[in-house]
Amino acid sequence: MSHNTFGHLFRVTTWGESHGAALGCVVDGCPPGIRFTRDEIQAELDKRRPGQSRFVTQRREPDEVKVLSGFVLDEDGETMITTGTPVSMLIENVDQRSKDYGEIARQYRPGHADYTYDVKYGIRDYRGGGRSSARETAARVAAGALARKVVPGMVVRGALVSMGEKSIDRANWNWNFIGDAENPFFTPDPASVPVFTQYLDGIRKAGSSVGAVIEIVADGVPPGLGAPIYAKLDQDIASGLMSINAVKGVEIGNGFEAARITGEQNADEMRIGNDGKPVFLSNNAGGILGGISTGQAIVARFAVKPTSSILTPRKSIDKDGNDVEVMTKGRHDPCVGIRAVPIGEAMVACAIADHYLRHRGQTGKGIGSRE
Amino acid sequence: MSHNTFGHLFRVTTWGESHGAALGCVVDGCPPGIRFTRDEIQAELDKRRPGQSRFVTQRREPDEVKVLSGFVLDEDGETMITTGTPVSMLIENVDQRSKDYGEIARQYRPGHADYTYDVKYGIRDYRGGGRSSARETAARVAAGALARKVVPGMVVRGALVSMGEKSIDRANWNWNFIGDAENPFFTPDPASVPVFTQYLDGIRKAGSSVGAVIEIVADGVPPGLGAPIYAKLDQDIASGLMSINAVKGVEIGNGFEAARITGEQNADEMRIGNDGKPVFLSNNAGGILGGISTGQAIVARFAVKPTSSILTPRKSIDKDGNDVEVMTKGRHDPCVGIRAVPIGEAMVACAIADHYLRHRGQTGKGIGSRE
Amino acid sequence: MSHNTFGHLFRVTTWGESHGAALGCVVDGCPPGIRFTRDEIQAELDKRRPGQSRFVTQRREPDEVKVLSGFVLDEDGETMITTGTPVSMLIENVDQRSKDYGEIARQYRPGHADYTYDVKYGIRDYRGGGRSSARETAARVAAGALARKVVPGMVVRGALVSMGEKSIDRANWNWNFIGDAENPFFTPDPASVPVFTQYLDGIRKAGSSVGAVIEIVADGVPPGLGAPIYAKLDQDIASGLMSINAVKGVEIGNGFEAARITGEQNADEMRIGNDGKPVFLSNNAGGILGGISTGQAIVARFAVKPTSSILTPRKSIDKDGNDVEVMTKGRHDPCVGIRAVPIGEAMVACAIADHYLRHRGQTGKGIGSRE
Amino acid sequence: MSHNTFGHLFRVTTWGESHGAALGCVVDGCPPGIRFTRDEIQAELDKRRPGQSRFVTQRREPDEVKVLSGFVLDEDGETMITTGTPVSMLIENVDQRSKDYGEIARQYRPGHADYTYDVKYGIRDYRGGGRSSARETAARVAAGALARKVVPGMVVRGALVSMGEKSIDRANWNWNFIGDAENPFFTPDPASVPVFTQYLDGIRKAGSSVGAVIEIVADGVPPGLGAPIYAKLDQDIASGLMSINAVKGVEIGNGFEAARITGEQNADEMRIGNDGKPVFLSNNAGGILGGISTGQAIVARFAVKPTSSILTPRKSIDKDGNDVEVMTKGRHDPCVGIRAVPIGEAMVACAIADHYLRHRGQTGKGIGSRE
Repeated sequence: MSHNTFGHLFRVTTWGESHGAALGCVVDGCPPGIRFTRDEIQAELDKRRPGQSRFVTQRREPDEVKVLSGFVLDEDGETMITTGTPVSMLIENVDQRSKDYGEIARQYRPGHADYTYDVKYGIRDYRGGGRSSARETAARVAAGALARKVVPGMVVRGALVSMGEKSIDRANWNWNFIGDAENPFFTPDPASVPVFTQYLDGIRKAGSSVGAVIEIVADGVPPGLGAPIYAKLDQDIASGLMSINAVKGVEIGNGFEAARITGEQNADEMRIGNDGKPVFLSNNAGGILGGISTGQAIVARFAVKPTSSILTPRKSIDKDGNDVEVMTKGRHDPCVGIRAVPIGEAMVACAIADHYLRHRGQTGKGIGSRE
Repeated sequence: MSHNTFGHLFRVTTWGESHGAALGCVVDGCPPGIRFTRDEIQAELDKRRPGQSRFVTQRREPDEVKVLSGFVLDEDGETMITTGTPVSMLIENVDQRSKDYGEIARQYRPGHADYTYDVKYGIRDYRGGGRSSARETAARVAAGALARKVVPGMVVRGALVSMGEKSIDRANWNWNFIGDAENPFFTPDPASVPVFTQYLDGIRKAGSSVGAVIEIVADGVPPGLGAPIYAKLDQDIASGLMSINAVKGVEIGNGFEAARITGEQNADEMRIGNDGKPVFLSNNAGGILGGISTGQAIVARFAVKPTSSILTPRKSIDKDGNDVEVMTKGRHDPCVGIRAVPIGEAMVACAIADHYLRHRGQTGKGIGSRE
Repeated sequence: MSHNTFGHLFRVTTWGESHGAALGCVVDGCPPGIRFTRDEIQAELDKRRPGQSRFVTQRREPDEVKVLSGFVLDEDGETMITTGTPVSMLIENVDQRSKDYGEIARQYRPGHADYTYDVKYGIRDYRGGGRSSARETAARVAAGALARKVVPGMVVRGALVSMGEKSIDRANWNWNFIGDAENPFFTPDPASVPVFTQYLDGIRKAGSSVGAVIEIVADGVPPGLGAPIYAKLDQDIASGLMSINAVKGVEIGNGFEAARITGEQNADEMRIGNDGKPVFLSNNAGGILGGISTGQAIVARFAVKPTSSILTPRKSIDKDGNDVEVMTKGRHDPCVGIRAVPIGEAMVACAIADHYLRHRGQTGKGIGSRE
Repeated sequence: MSHNTFGHLFRVTTWGESHGAALGCVVDGCPPGIRFTRDEIQAELDKRRPGQSRFVTQRREPDEVKVLSGFVLDEDGETMITTGTPVSMLIENVDQRSKDYGEIARQYRPGHADYTYDVKYGIRDYRGGGRSSARETAARVAAGALARKVVPGMVVRGALVSMGEKSIDRANWNWNFIGDAENPFFTPDPASVPVFTQYLDGIRKAGSSVGAVIEIVADGVPPGLGAPIYAKLDQDIASGLMSINAVKGVEIGNGFEAARITGEQNADEMRIGNDGKPVFLSNNAGGILGGISTGQAIVARFAVKPTSSILTPRKSIDKDGNDVEVMTKGRHDPCVGIRAVPIGEAMVACAIADHYLRHRGQTGKGIGSRE
């Protein structure tokens, strides 16, 4: 990945800060003939505002995406058809008021990139986190909405599986519950909602924050995507997930658990199924063996750290070399991990779409000739 | 990363299978004027054969590296000085005897890439795992030996911190113990040696296997390396570590633990030190904030799954669509994770070296002008 | 170069068609601290409309560039300072009226990309040439305006040196004449204006068209930029120039002439100058030896073919497999090569800026430490 | 292109200097299932030693290629079948004697890269031109031999069309004559042999040198390869040809001639042929429109400068800042352009192979489904 681009054949470049005029992405290498609507892209973007609950800080931004290039309109005047040229998408920043950033401009918030930006570049846009703003992720989600359409039959979904000390009960897993209006957490476990609610209310009232673990599952991925060594599918998924703000860990399949169990327990056995096709008897591998997809569901998880924007003063320093106490003022977001669910989906979708095209390029195998 | 290349300015391409004539790497973009000896490269390669113990299967391969290009010899006739052109290194495979692979050629070993290779390419070199062989990692270690010299003052070290159900006691951490002749595990905790020994003996006798968790620490990394979004230093380290065979999870700093604690506990506070320079009071971030190095130690961990080459029969299928039982014969390696320590070091060294050059390219800042 | 991106460290991605909502570019990897104004970018764009003469078709587009990201405003409220994050620039297409394209939508104009687009993608935006529109070049020119500022002391200028059968007299070369209001041709030779005027008037009245040869000269380029083999500075300049629409040939230094003369005539001799620095006694090499800049002026030339949009009917076919006669209607542009001057400048500036950063990355040499 | 790698999906990395132990290439991304023999690769390499004539300096190097990885042997024990993993090829340098380079080590030969290497890297391997040695091109030719097999039906051939002031008569063009034992020039015109012979004998006796123009023609290239803007097929061909040592100019189709003629003369008209398929009535475009192949023959030309290794003393300087006279001693090569023919073929083959895979990746169109 170069600085602001990821992907090899399905390439996404994003740009923009939270307080500039706009932000956006350019999706290059998209196959021609992909049909989509602006509303479909928008629907993905809207998922980043779950439940409109008290648990997620809302900047008053409509996040309306404009599609500027790379398509022709179908006769219905609404469906866009990609032409194979770059698809540029843009989201204007409505709220660019220059409030008084006073101290923040000179102080380094602990756990933020303020200090490292200044060390690296000698200059930074301190308003709203600059390039590290969560708003940048809107651009990825827009790109991911296109990526989902590149691989026929692929469905990419995500869920929050733990929040701070609390975890879901996997026995209750229900994908349909995730979009439920009563579910502000992207949790797949209905029983977890009251638990998370009470827990996060406590965190919020204490002016504190917690992290979260998100799981992404991609179904319908054809076998054969990836490569044995440095273009492993799991590696590129891990790279994409680690590129999300505040992510500190990534697992594929059973992940770190694999390091604790034996070879007998870990290896996924195989049988020929009734339809004569290979069947795996388990999926500890998370759908990837030797860097190449097996045809099983791709499973990845990532850990999001708690935001360090908390209401308790923390020790830090300022640009001039003074010791200071830094404290976030106003509203705060007790669990930024919640929003990370659609972002993780987008990154996984983009990685798989890229490898789908790369596989087709090197081997000439498409979805129709997979055996 | 493209198929067999990683890095952007410090670029490493590896090639070779375990049963071909040779394997090797090409290191492109190495700065001119780096001084090294063949012995230094060889010493890194030899680290992959720890303790010569009964816990690590030894192919009788001397793994002698040849340096073929990219240098001039200094007057001492031994020291090589890079010229800025590609450094090609090669390791011959001494043992290429074609033993009888009979069944293995047609059977898919559970947990191996046999099946996915065939699905992807329609053809594979089944001898010794082909491209997925652990021997390929020799090429990375050779490249890493050069990478270590690119960043002045950087020291990259690794340690095994857990094996199956057993973990070290971090209170006993002693880097110097790792190279000890009595230490066949790369463990930094002397007290763990009898524990690991007894545990792994049991695993070995049972014909079973276990995984491991490896920790890599890079000291002396200047602040400012990396980028905020898609060229994050942690992301590229994670990508490199996930490219190692059998790795299923990666963490930076406190990793998944960050998702379980609060923002107060997690954020690393800062103070101005006695020398007037910034000091961090903890290092949960693993030396990276917002994708950019802070100047603290870079800390990464990765989980290696247990090898599925075990002495117990496992259910699988063959190329012709038959159900079969697969069992590894002969010697086996009860914990492949042990060998992964120098490989992890190499990947981290390469990622940091690459970002060191990229940082210098974009900002013009070298190690001497960092403030 | 990938599909719509060029450059390695100074990376430019462009997007947009002539009849979409907008077009633009993202400049990634720009060093932090570069100071520029929107007016400076706009001035480069305005150069694409030379002399407002009868020789250059004018779409009524103001081509107003917006800079959307990657900078902070200086205190003067006008100067932008790059932050090292991607600079996104956008130019809206004012005139998007959907006129009746009727036949054009189905006919393949000879010498255009209509046919190849359809063969490749199966779909195309036939309005205004789609992605091949000359309007796309505005995005390059905007990027080039930034690139000019990356290399301290570099000045990149271009000139039209021949048009169809007519050429300038190099003895009259005057860079200052190029911006002259009386000069609609970017010619450096005042004496050529009446010649070109009469010639092109004839071409225009005949409904015909001619090509042109453009020369780009970059002064103030430090020695050492480039690489011996596949990242040659001349190669990347040639690649950039060949990426401009309608370009069919590129030369460095004396170019094809070098193939006609002897080694004695061709090689540029050297002497130590009065100031103790190396001096070249000629510049047949065009400032590049072995792919690396010498410190002399970089000189490149490229040939632009005559547009095939002419008022004479030409034989062609349509999408349905019928023989047809195709003729351009309305205004036409008798020499599209004229506009190519600022575009060529931009591509050369971008290539050199990229190599400036790459050289600094690999060798640690900046402009201040060149000896 | 990065420093020593070219191509995007069909990627070639070369390494090695003329006086190191060996040189070679790694071909990454080659499709699986390509069948080839070592002899086929060797045959291409042997073409670089045309006619064993007095016009081409022969180092006594057998140039025997070894194929080290990326294949399995077919049952005949000779045919290699690519597995999709990297193909590493190596050529040992037999003659590495360290003769006395004395002055050459400190003097900058005019027209060579000696000076720029030293300025860039501060160090260089002065023996035999280091990385700029013509021997490096053997690695490209080996890679090109594989590339030829990637595109079904493609035939890439090259010819010398002019040498210094002398040119062939195109009316005599006979591809079959090029491999003729009586033809030491790769000329397609039998009548040109005595002309070139007499001319070059004069040059040789005078201790002088001349350049040459080479033409490469690729037949059987499917339409649709390339892209409209920055991945133009002509651009990538030009880039590849410009990466060859001593090349100063590149043309596609009629090239610079296009800039001299009118739109009526230049545009290639089309008709529906008797078989219902599109037919072009001429090929000024050289088989590429808008950066995308038309299905016609791809035609490219490049100019090779005369070597500056001549027997006449030339003014130069040395490393210590002294004025010196430099003269080549011993045998010299009066027209290095002759050898460039197979090298140019290789670069064109690689560029087209790369685009063949990229086209298949983006559009899903293979050779069998082109309409």
